[in-house]
Amino acid sequence: MTAAGAEFETLPAVWTRRHLLDLESLSPAELTCVLDAADRFKAATDDCRRKISVLTGRTLANLFFENSTRTRNSFSLAARRLGADTVEFSSSGSSTAKGETVIDTAKNIEAMNVDAVVIRHRTPGSPYLLAKNLDCAIINAGDGPHEHPTQGLLDILTIRQRRGSLQGLTVALVGDIAHSRTARSNIWGLQKLGAHVILCGPPTLVSRRWEEFGVEVAYRLDDIVERCDVLNLLRIQFERQYTRPFPSVREYALLYAMNSERMRRAKSDILIMAPGPINRGVEITPDVADGPQSVILEQVTNGIAVRMAVLWLTMNTAQTNS
Amino acid sequence: MTAAGAEFETLPAVWTRRHLLDLESLSPAELTCVLDAADRFKAATDDCRRKISVLTGRTLANLFFENSTRTRNSFSLAARRLGADTVEFSSSGSSTAKGETVIDTAKNIEAMNVDAVVIRHRTPGSPYLLAKNLDCAIINAGDGPHEHPTQGLLDILTIRQRRGSLQGLTVALVGDIAHSRTARSNIWGLQKLGAHVILCGPPTLVSRRWEEFGVEVAYRLDDIVERCDVLNLLRIQFERQYTRPFPSVREYALLYAMNSERMRRAKSDILIMAPGPINRGVEITPDVADGPQSVILEQVTNGIAVRMAVLWLTMNTAQTNS
Amino acid sequence: MTAAGAEFETLPAVWTRRHLLDLESLSPAELTCVLDAADRFKAATDDCRRKISVLTGRTLANLFFENSTRTRNSFSLAARRLGADTVEFSSSGSSTAKGETVIDTAKNIEAMNVDAVVIRHRTPGSPYLLAKNLDCAIINAGDGPHEHPTQGLLDILTIRQRRGSLQGLTVALVGDIAHSRTARSNIWGLQKLGAHVILCGPPTLVSRRWEEFGVEVAYRLDDIVERCDVLNLLRIQFERQYTRPFPSVREYALLYAMNSERMRRAKSDILIMAPGPINRGVEITPDVADGPQSVILEQVTNGIAVRMAVLWLTMNTAQTNS
Repeated sequence: MTAAGAEFETLPAVWTRRHLLDLESLSPAELTCVLDAADRFKAATDDCRRKISVLTGRTLANLFFENSTRTRNSFSLAARRLGADTVEFSSSGSSTAKGETVIDTAKNIEAMNVDAVVIRHRTPGSPYLLAKNLDCAIINAGDGPHEHPTQGLLDILTIRQRRGSLQGLTVALVGDIAHSRTARSNIWGLQKLGAHVILCGPPTLVSRRWEEFGVEVAYRLDDIVERCDVLNLLRIQFERQYTRPFPSVREYALLYAMNSERMRRAKSDILIMAPGPINRGVEITPDVADGPQSVILEQVTNGIAVRMAVLWLTMNTAQTNS
Repeated sequence: MTAAGAEFETLPAVWTRRHLLDLESLSPAELTCVLDAADRFKAATDDCRRKISVLTGRTLANLFFENSTRTRNSFSLAARRLGADTVEFSSSGSSTAKGETVIDTAKNIEAMNVDAVVIRHRTPGSPYLLAKNLDCAIINAGDGPHEHPTQGLLDILTIRQRRGSLQGLTVALVGDIAHSRTARSNIWGLQKLGAHVILCGPPTLVSRRWEEFGVEVAYRLDDIVERCDVLNLLRIQFERQYTRPFPSVREYALLYAMNSERMRRAKSDILIMAPGPINRGVEITPDVADGPQSVILEQVTNGIAVRMAVLWLTMNTAQTNS
Repeated sequence: MTAAGAEFETLPAVWTRRHLLDLESLSPAELTCVLDAADRFKAATDDCRRKISVLTGRTLANLFFENSTRTRNSFSLAARRLGADTVEFSSSGSSTAKGETVIDTAKNIEAMNVDAVVIRHRTPGSPYLLAKNLDCAIINAGDGPHEHPTQGLLDILTIRQRRGSLQGLTVALVGDIAHSRTARSNIWGLQKLGAHVILCGPPTLVSRRWEEFGVEVAYRLDDIVERCDVLNLLRIQFERQYTRPFPSVREYALLYAMNSERMRRAKSDILIMAPGPINRGVEITPDVADGPQSVILEQVTNGIAVRMAVLWLTMNTAQTNS
C-alpha cells in the first residue's frame, strides 16, 4: 500500500462541490480540475493498479436501482484503491420493493454514516433529490436518460490523453441519442472544453433541438465520417420498445456501423470509442473494435481514474463543509 | 484507522456468551453490558463513522436465507469498522437450492474458518441449531417470527440514549405483533430493564396471552396514546395472507397510524420509533416520521453501534472458549 | 495481520505458469509444488484463519457465469487472507445479457487492471480463451464438464495430509462421472501422483474409454468397496435430464450410497470424501457423512489453502512475466 502522496493532501482551490450530479453545471475549470486529478491518480497508482490511501476509513455506498455490474465495480475499485470501504445496496431484494421511498432508503443509508452515496436510478433528477436531503457526498451514476457524468468524464479524459486538448476537435456521438445519458454528459463536457459535437443517428432518435445549443445533427454516418477526430459509438438497445419507424439491426448496421470501409475514408488518427458493452457487428465491426484506432479499453481504465478523482474531490469537500 | 483503545482490550466480566440467540434468556446485567459497549463503540468511532481495529483479521459470514439488504449491510459495516472481513452467503443461488440441509451449509461455512456466523432464517430456532453444531459465534439476525435480538437492542439503546434509563417508561409496540420478531425481542428486553410494555393492534394480530407475562394489550391506539413515552410503529406486511377479518390499509391507518392529531394528544416528549422500512401514510404520516420526536434514523445508526458491541463480545468469547 | 513470512518471498523454481487451467497438463512436480505451498500457507495462517500479506494491493476478479456461492467465496477468502482485494462479476444482471462476448467481458475486467481472473463458465475451454487474450493470471473454477482443477487439488491435498503420499493408494470416484469436472481433475491429478483410480457409477454415466488411460471402471460399489483407500462420492444431479435408462433416487442409493453396511466391509482407515453439497441419504448416509472416516469438512478448509497457493503462484508469475 503506497503512502498517500503529499500532492493529494490539499484539494485544488477551484473545487468546492460536495456532489457530482451532472456535467451541465460544471465550469470548464472544474471539468479540467477533475481531468487533471484523474491523470495524477492514474500516474500515482501505476495505471490505477496500486493503492493510494487518501480515503482510508471512509465508506462509499453503491445504491443502484438499475443493474450495472460494470459501473458499480468501477466505483468500488476506485474507492478501494483509495483505501475506502464499500457497501452495496441494490434494488432487488431491498426495501424499495416493500414500498419505501427513494429518499427514505437513502436517508437510512446515510444514517449508517457513509461518506458518499453513488446512485443510479431510472428517474431523472433523483441524485439532486438526494443531494438536497442527505448530508454526504452524492455522485450520479446515471439518472434515467438525463446524465451519467463520470461516463462523460472518462470519455473526455481518454480523448485528452490522446490529443492533449479537446479544443477544436470534432467529436461525433453515434446512435440512440434520445435515450442516452452518456450522450448528454458528453455533449455538455465536450462543448465546455472547446470541441465541436455532432450527433448522428436515426431521425427518431436524434432531436434537432440540440442545434439550438450549437450542436450539429446528422442522419447518416457517411455524411460526417471524414470530418471526425473522434467517433463515440453508443449502444442501440434493441430490447427497448422504439417508436416506429425504426431501422432493423441490419439496416442500423448498414447506416451507422463503423467498419473497415468507413475507416478508410476517416482521418488516419481518428479515435474509436464506445461506452460498452459493445454489440460486435451492430454499431462496430470486430476489426474496428480491435483495431489500432480503438481506445475502448483505455476508456475502462480511465473510468477508474476518473472515479478516483471524483471520490477524492467530493468526499473531501463533503467533509470540510459538514 | 484508529488504534484499538485500551478500553476494548478486556471483555466485561458479566459477558460469558459465545452467541446472541435471543433477548429472552439474557439477564438485565447482560442487556446493560451490550448497551454500554454499544455506547462506548459509538463514542470511540465518531458515531460509528471511523474504524477501531479490535477484530483485525477475523471473519464474519452473513448467512441470509431471507432477503435483507439493510440488516445484512448493518452487520457488514459493523464488522468492517472493527477491522474484520466479511463474506456473504445468500440463499438464492446457493447450495440449499440443491437440497443441502441448513446445518450442512453452516458447517461448510464454519470449515472455511470464519469466526462468526450471522444467520437469518424463516424457521424459529435455526440459530440454536447452529450454536449446538458449530464451533464459532452465532448471531441471530431474525428466526421467523421468534426473535431479532439486535433489532430489540438497537430500539432499546435509542430509548436509553434519549431518556437515560428504561425504568418506569411506558413503551407501546403498535401493529402486527403476532408475526413480529422485532416485537418479541423488544418485549423481553424492555421488561427486563423495567419498562411497561403495551401491545397495540388489531385483535387478530395481538394475542391476549401476552397478559400472562405482565404485558398490557390494547386494540385502539386512541386508548393508550396519552400514556406512552415511546411508540414503536411496526410495519404491517400487507403482502402477507392475513386471517380474516382484517382491516384494509385505509382502516388500519385510521385506527393505528401515528399522525399529527394523535401527536397533539401525546406527551410532548414522546419518542416515535419504527424499525423500517416505513410505509408513509400507513403506520405513520410523513409529518410525524420527519418530525422532531422521530428517532427513526438514530435507530439506524444505533444498529451499527449495537452490532459492533455484539460482534466484539461474542467473537472474543468464542475465541477464549474454543 | 501477520507479516509475510520470508518463506513466501520467492516462488519455487519448478513453477513457471501464469495460469491454472487444468490438472491434465501439470507435471507431478508442479502438482507437488502447489500441494506443498498449500500446506505451508495452512500452517502459516493457523489453518487458513489468519492473514498473511503476500498479495497486498493486488486484485482478483471473480467472473462466474454459473452460480456458485461456495467456490466463489472460497476464492474470495483465500485472496483476502493473502491481503488482496476482490471484485465480483456474476452473469445475472451483467453485460453478457446484453449480447457481449465472453472475451469482451473479460477484457473489460482486465482493463480495470485486475491481477487475476477466476472464471467459471459452462463452455469447456473458456479459461484457455481468456489465457490467450488477457494479460493477467487466469484460474479455471470449472469449465463445463471439463475440469475444476482447484477442486481436484483440494481433494488430493486432503488425502495426502491423511496418508502422507498418494503413491499406491486406490481411490474410487463414485457417481456421475460423465458430467463431472471434479472427476476429470481428480483422475489426472491422482494418476500423476501414483494413485490407482476407479470410476464407479451407472453404465450411462461412466464411460469405458477411461480404461485406455489406465483407469479401472466398475458398475457396482459392492464390487470395489473392500479395495478402496479413499471413496470420493460425487453428487448425482437429479435436476439434470439424464439419458434413459437411469436409476431412480432409490435405486441409486441402493447401488451406490455409502452406508454403514458398506462401511463394515471397507478398510478400517478408509477416507470418505464428497465435494458437496451432499445429498444425505442419496450418495451418502448421515452416519457415514458425520462418521470418523469422513474428511468432508477438511476438504472445505483445504479448499482455501489450495486457492491461497494457486493465487500466490500464478499472480506472482503473472507479474514477473508481464
